[in-house]
Amino acid sequence: MSGNTYGKLFTVTTAGESHGPALVAIVDGCPPGLPLSEADLQIDLDRRKPGTSRHTTQRQEADEVEIVSGVFEGKTTGTPIGLLIRNTDQKSKDYSAIKDLFRPAHADYTYHHKYGTRDYRGGGRSSARETAMRVAAGAIAKKVLAGFGIQVRGYMSQLGPIEIPFKTWDSVEDNAFFCPDPAKVPELEAYMDQLRRDQDSVGAKITVVADGVMPGLGEPIFDRLDAELAHALMSINAVKGVEIGAGFASVAQRGTEHRDELTPDGFLSNNAGGILGGISSGQPIIAHLALKPTSSITTPGRSIDVAGQSQDVITKGRHDPCVGIRATPIAEAMMAIVLLDHLLRNRAQNADVQVSTPVLGQL
Amino acid sequence: MSGNTYGKLFTVTTAGESHGPALVAIVDGCPPGLPLSEADLQIDLDRRKPGTSRHTTQRQEADEVEIVSGVFEGKTTGTPIGLLIRNTDQKSKDYSAIKDLFRPAHADYTYHHKYGTRDYRGGGRSSARETAMRVAAGAIAKKVLAGFGIQVRGYMSQLGPIEIPFKTWDSVEDNAFFCPDPAKVPELEAYMDQLRRDQDSVGAKITVVADGVMPGLGEPIFDRLDAELAHALMSINAVKGVEIGAGFASVAQRGTEHRDELTPDGFLSNNAGGILGGISSGQPIIAHLALKPTSSITTPGRSIDVAGQSQDVITKGRHDPCVGIRATPIAEAMMAIVLLDHLLRNRAQNADVQVSTPVLGQL
Amino acid sequence: MSGNTYGKLFTVTTAGESHGPALVAIVDGCPPGLPLSEADLQIDLDRRKPGTSRHTTQRQEADEVEIVSGVFEGKTTGTPIGLLIRNTDQKSKDYSAIKDLFRPAHADYTYHHKYGTRDYRGGGRSSARETAMRVAAGAIAKKVLAGFGIQVRGYMSQLGPIEIPFKTWDSVEDNAFFCPDPAKVPELEAYMDQLRRDQDSVGAKITVVADGVMPGLGEPIFDRLDAELAHALMSINAVKGVEIGAGFASVAQRGTEHRDELTPDGFLSNNAGGILGGISSGQPIIAHLALKPTSSITTPGRSIDVAGQSQDVITKGRHDPCVGIRATPIAEAMMAIVLLDHLLRNRAQNADVQVSTPVLGQL
Amino acid sequence: MSGNTYGKLFTVTTAGESHGPALVAIVDGCPPGLPLSEADLQIDLDRRKPGTSRHTTQRQEADEVEIVSGVFEGKTTGTPIGLLIRNTDQKSKDYSAIKDLFRPAHADYTYHHKYGTRDYRGGGRSSARETAMRVAAGAIAKKVLAGFGIQVRGYMSQLGPIEIPFKTWDSVEDNAFFCPDPAKVPELEAYMDQLRRDQDSVGAKITVVADGVMPGLGEPIFDRLDAELAHALMSINAVKGVEIGAGFASVAQRGTEHRDELTPDGFLSNNAGGILGGISSGQPIIAHLALKPTSSITTPGRSIDVAGQSQDVITKGRHDPCVGIRATPIAEAMMAIVLLDHLLRNRAQNADVQVSTPVLGQL
Repeated sequence: MSGNTYGKLFTVTTAGESHGPALVAIVDGCPPGLPLSEADLQIDLDRRKPGTSRHTTQRQEADEVEIVSGVFEGKTTGTPIGLLIRNTDQKSKDYSAIKDLFRPAHADYTYHHKYGTRDYRGGGRSSARETAMRVAAGAIAKKVLAGFGIQVRGYMSQLGPIEIPFKTWDSVEDNAFFCPDPAKVPELEAYMDQLRRDQDSVGAKITVVADGVMPGLGEPIFDRLDAELAHALMSINAVKGVEIGAGFASVAQRGTEHRDELTPDGFLSNNAGGILGGISSGQPIIAHLALKPTSSITTPGRSIDVAGQSQDVITKGRHDPCVGIRATPIAEAMMAIVLLDHLLRNRAQNADVQVSTPVLGQL
Repeated sequence: MSGNTYGKLFTVTTAGESHGPALVAIVDGCPPGLPLSEADLQIDLDRRKPGTSRHTTQRQEADEVEIVSGVFEGKTTGTPIGLLIRNTDQKSKDYSAIKDLFRPAHADYTYHHKYGTRDYRGGGRSSARETAMRVAAGAIAKKVLAGFGIQVRGYMSQLGPIEIPFKTWDSVEDNAFFCPDPAKVPELEAYMDQLRRDQDSVGAKITVVADGVMPGLGEPIFDRLDAELAHALMSINAVKGVEIGAGFASVAQRGTEHRDELTPDGFLSNNAGGILGGISSGQPIIAHLALKPTSSITTPGRSIDVAGQSQDVITKGRHDPCVGIRATPIAEAMMAIVLLDHLLRNRAQNADVQVSTPVLGQL
Repeated sequence: MSGNTYGKLFTVTTAGESHGPALVAIVDGCPPGLPLSEADLQIDLDRRKPGTSRHTTQRQEADEVEIVSGVFEGKTTGTPIGLLIRNTDQKSKDYSAIKDLFRPAHADYTYHHKYGTRDYRGGGRSSARETAMRVAAGAIAKKVLAGFGIQVRGYMSQLGPIEIPFKTWDSVEDNAFFCPDPAKVPELEAYMDQLRRDQDSVGAKITVVADGVMPGLGEPIFDRLDAELAHALMSINAVKGVEIGAGFASVAQRGTEHRDELTPDGFLSNNAGGILGGISSGQPIIAHLALKPTSSITTPGRSIDVAGQSQDVITKGRHDPCVGIRATPIAEAMMAIVLLDHLLRNRAQNADVQVSTPVLGQL
Repeated sequence: MSGNTYGKLFTVTTAGESHGPALVAIVDGCPPGLPLSEADLQIDLDRRKPGTSRHTTQRQEADEVEIVSGVFEGKTTGTPIGLLIRNTDQKSKDYSAIKDLFRPAHADYTYHHKYGTRDYRGGGRSSARETAMRVAAGAIAKKVLAGFGIQVRGYMSQLGPIEIPFKTWDSVEDNAFFCPDPAKVPELEAYMDQLRRDQDSVGAKITVVADGVMPGLGEPIFDRLDAELAHALMSINAVKGVEIGAGFASVAQRGTEHRDELTPDGFLSNNAGGILGGISSGQPIIAHLALKPTSSITTPGRSIDVAGQSQDVITKGRHDPCVGIRATPIAEAMMAIVLLDHLLRNRAQNADVQVSTPVLGQL
């Protein structure tokens, strides 16, 4: 199928370039009868929106979404939901200078060799602007999941060298970084201010958590829930790594340490990140993702042009010095899409399953 | 589609339980005219096979594969290739004791809640035995890729706490660990011997590298090449994390450090792991995967039974103390399957693309 | 996957209701470098457009399509093509009276039972208005196919009881019926005029032909080219039957009559309709489709309401007395989409196939 | 996806050639807990099996199926069901003479041009032998459907020029033709005896009916239930046409005649064939399919060889003079597979839908 579609039953198909006329998405498979309006989508779109603090790009996009189908009299009808976001702040002139250049760490070189052509304005299809539609679609998924008692939330767990241990969800929405520890925020702000002075960028780590997931979501082999989460999260711009639960720390763990023992009161730990054998266990689902530093920086870099000649490149324009800062709602959206897709897949096959074994309490 | 199928054009569908009559696979989409025999598949099956050293399970499986379709007069015909491996060493009696128990860190609990039933013999479908068919299918993919000059190889890059920097491919096939540094092998052997005495298990990190990949493989958005690799590699039993290129090290990197600069002679580094914007750049494609410690250990652990009652669990049977040791050919297989699938997808859409820009030399 | 997506490599995903804000489509997998503008799509949209003669609905829809992505500097980029058509003539008031009624032969009853809700305005998603986007997407497919020398054309081969043997393509675009015999047009007009006076509707048969298709398109088993054409054509509103080549006439044929013999100069007949074993033979591909009479007629009919009570139904509004009249461009679009999808699939797997056997001349 | 896989949630993937070692199939998505054994599959395999009367090919195939996975302790586990049928009667010598010939109306010519190679023994993958696996998979689908009160049955409705109006299901299994009218059987036998003397073959029409289907199965647009049935039925070897309900008779019908009026006691007719707007209405689902005459006949025909030279062809071997005779269980199987797939798809999205409107009685 199309590389621009995600999901098997709850599917999200997107189109649109950074500086084209509009972004569109078609969200298919949503159960009928869900109350839904643009306002539901706008919440997460606004969380992702640039320009809300001095630490993100100053590009001004209203990111106002219009629902053009699939909702009637305020409720979903079960038919596909069409979404439209007009691009309003298309400063194409900023980009024409790099039309024949391959910016390091961008997709310029690879798009050129794949397609023989590319929309060079703002990265075209490779721009993170595309993720606005993921966030809008994810907001629909989140609302359906909420009806099943499932909540998907994310936070920044590392900014460059600064690790951010989780403290409280209460703090996450109160700062520009989705930082779960209010005491850490000043350190992050100082780090970002210095970064801008250095004309440089930095990576970040995001953690996404789903609470309330029932046991049984995921397929045993290729479509394991963790495999699909890895797919979905790695598909986000700039992501270079995905972990489930203990992740790479598992390498140095011993079996006696890693295995999450069970008691009648619940699991005693959650190294598994809520997934065993590719299937949800009822514990919180925990994923971490690594985002590389923004490629667009004003410090000159060596590169080549389409003729293969050496060129120095300075990426002007308005860019996030840390793309990870705005990645939290995107990661939440992708996890929500995966979970809803698997919830639907699971009830398709296993709606009649009855077990008397109790679901264990979450850790 | 089915959770037991991987790929869009080069597809691999598998079935089979650890202790059922047989494993089967159907490999579809293979180009016609490829010379192919069972011997081609047996090479990698033997690399994965248990019981070849004292460091892996002593289960004796011949793992002899039969090609039952899709090959005629020694060549592929373009029709689906049916593969069959009979299970010959099914000691089902070893497992009946745990029939009503949920072993910690196994899929027992999740399968039970998903399906209401499970084949408890040797883990059934959740057993790593299933990966034999991935390896067989991957061997076909490797042979097709070889015709395009692409080579996929893997090695162990960490065993428990012991990091193994890459030295040479020449060493990898000469020891039981797929260790790329012959000088490290004695340390690994000593570690494993102690581990068995401790009745414990440990995790591992595997690195897989594809050389010779042309630029242009991968799709821009959801089916980015890195996203599909993450999916495929995370779908391997026991994998808890996947990195592309610099992976989680990207988090603390600055943009000036991470970006791989280009010169007319080639890229100056490969933090990207050979993928930019989800599309191959022509550099080596590099992925790392974290495998958790084997869950089946003889040190007793706390658990519950299907009635929700507390039980102590000792997993008997013949198990690998480090599942990562045999994971290298599996990881190679999955990377090969993904690359071939995307090679076919790319030429479907872009067969006519002509660019004059030279492909840069690999780092 | 989504029921609103067609195709595996060249995919068309649509959304939109008859009286909602807009129709949207995402066309994915189009090869890059194709010159494309709205004008290319408008040609077929205008051929399908209602209100161009007294024999079709008088609903006035400009059906102006906007390309919102995937085209840059006048050429396709290989990224998904977003299409948008605003609904401008939404007379919702016409429909509120039937909000709780199930109109006979409409989808009202089945949507109600499936979704528990429905957009009753003009049939909502079940309206043939949805096919506008198929026509727009098909126009893209046609343009790509033209570059391979493939031409897809259709005509009306029967209107109610009036059979219309094929005479000439030259006539097809010169009348309101896509009638290939100018001498038949007055008879069709008289029939339609009487039909309106009778307050009734009638069925039609459409024939679609693809010339210039190379041998080798189609997959052997489930995705036979004829099976996919049957799927695509039967998915058009009101279609109740699909034939390939001799179709149902094959039932009474003998083998000596049906088999298309081959000579060095070509096939001697085309009962196969250009497809053997599910794969194109190089002969013209010929499909026929039966369309039922329009369900919306002003002659009262018996029905029930959502409470299960008996009701008389008269469907007011502006309706085509023969939905088949406007079906020709839709059928062409669906055949073009299928052919392009299979052309891409075929070259993915078989791009390297070389045979010395000549392609036979077309009949 | 693979052209050898059918279905989205209940998926059937097959492999195997007429004269290769074996046929295999992987049936995925079956709900767990279904009692299942080889005997369940053998019933329909025996109904399709050749050599049971003088009117079908005398090829002797035991067609004994082995379930190699997915069933444990007599019940399905929810994991994929692997099926294996060994080919036991492979008289390859019969076929070597036609190795370089293209038999008229066979897939020889098209496979040759598509793949550049083909397994010429008995038609290889293009042989109707492949349908054995469809029948086995369909038997699984039928058994699941039976649990929902759905029954799928077929009969021969025309043999060559002899139309066979439906009389009674009781007769269908009592004769070699699946003829629903015992009074017609002598006429059919006489016709077939003459046909063999004429060294010729003939077409047939098969009708398949599903009773007990609940309203709501099918998707509105491209995956309409009728479109998927057309796909599945047209994918059967030799099928040249598919009708739903009134089918091609709809062309000459008027709207007042075709529309199935509703009363509180049920629908008054079933021209729709049980499907409105692509979704099941609760009425019996009725499909007709046209099968062409067997291509393999002993009357010589003109053809060419791989060098493009003129050749006379006589197809020896053991062939059915009317492939339609054994097609009934195959058509039932494909309808059952489609219905189960859509039943699962429907409950994935719409499991929570509640309507108070009564389901109408079936006609």
